Amino acid sequence: MSERKFIEDREKLEKLAPVATAPIKRHVFVCNGKSCAAVGSGEVKAAFEKQLEEKNLRYGKESKGRNPQGAVVLTDCSSVGFCSIGTAVLVYPEGVWYAQVREEDVSEIIEEHLEKGKTVERLALINMDE
Amino acid sequence: MSERKFIEDREKLEKLAPVATAPIKRHVFVCNGKSCAAVGSGEVKAAFEKQLEEKNLRYGKESKGRNPQGAVVLTDCSSVGFCSIGTAVLVYPEGVWYAQVREEDVSEIIEEHLEKGKTVERLALINMDE
Repeated sequence: MSERKFIEDREKLEKLAPVATAPIKRHVFVCNGKSCAAVGSGEVKAAFEKQLEEKNLRYGKESKGRNPQGAVVLTDCSSVGFCSIGTAVLVYPEGVWYAQVREEDVSEIIEEHLEKGKTVERLALINMDE
Repeated sequence: MSERKFIEDREKLEKLAPVATAPIKRHVFVCNGKSCAAVGSGEVKAAFEKQLEEKNLRYGKESKGRNPQGAVVLTDCSSVGFCSIGTAVLVYPEGVWYAQVREEDVSEIIEEHLEKGKTVERLALINMDE
């Protein structure tokens, strides 16, 4: 590991990581574990990417087709224990863990949960808010 | 993709994914992106694993040295945009994004944030709660 100097200057940090000042409201994680991958997590993630970018909701660089003022961060995560009932999709800060998510469910999660704030109950198995 | 039958029975789902009934309070994500890996995210993740398991806080199978009644889920995530200021460590549901986390900071994040509920301000760059 290289020795790095700890940066204390907040302005400098925000310049190095513009996400720090973006109006992020939600973070969506798509499990990329082996079991989820075997039932289509790659397609689920791709559907989120496509649809969030079309709606201009996805935070990220404009050069990548994303929105520097987007309200949704989308990333992968590793296995969360939904291996038998994938694809797992997690939405924070609510702490809603969706199971059995297929590519065709993605538009409903975006429209209902990310846009209207309503949990998609038929897919939700954990809700940390409750 | 194989065609799978959608499972509606909640009891069956909880049997297939015991995490659904565990008393999870927090989810810690350690970025495994290339830039974070280059500054030690592997060591940071390993320190979380070791210390959370020693404290019996990490949710998971007993056969793996974890606790089926643990309150903390620990996983990797992909890049969140802290590439220049890694290692990124995220704690949800608070939505606290820590930057520049080194192996030696892990015990403080566990003791202060995960055990006492206090954000480690010197490392926190985003706090979605605020």
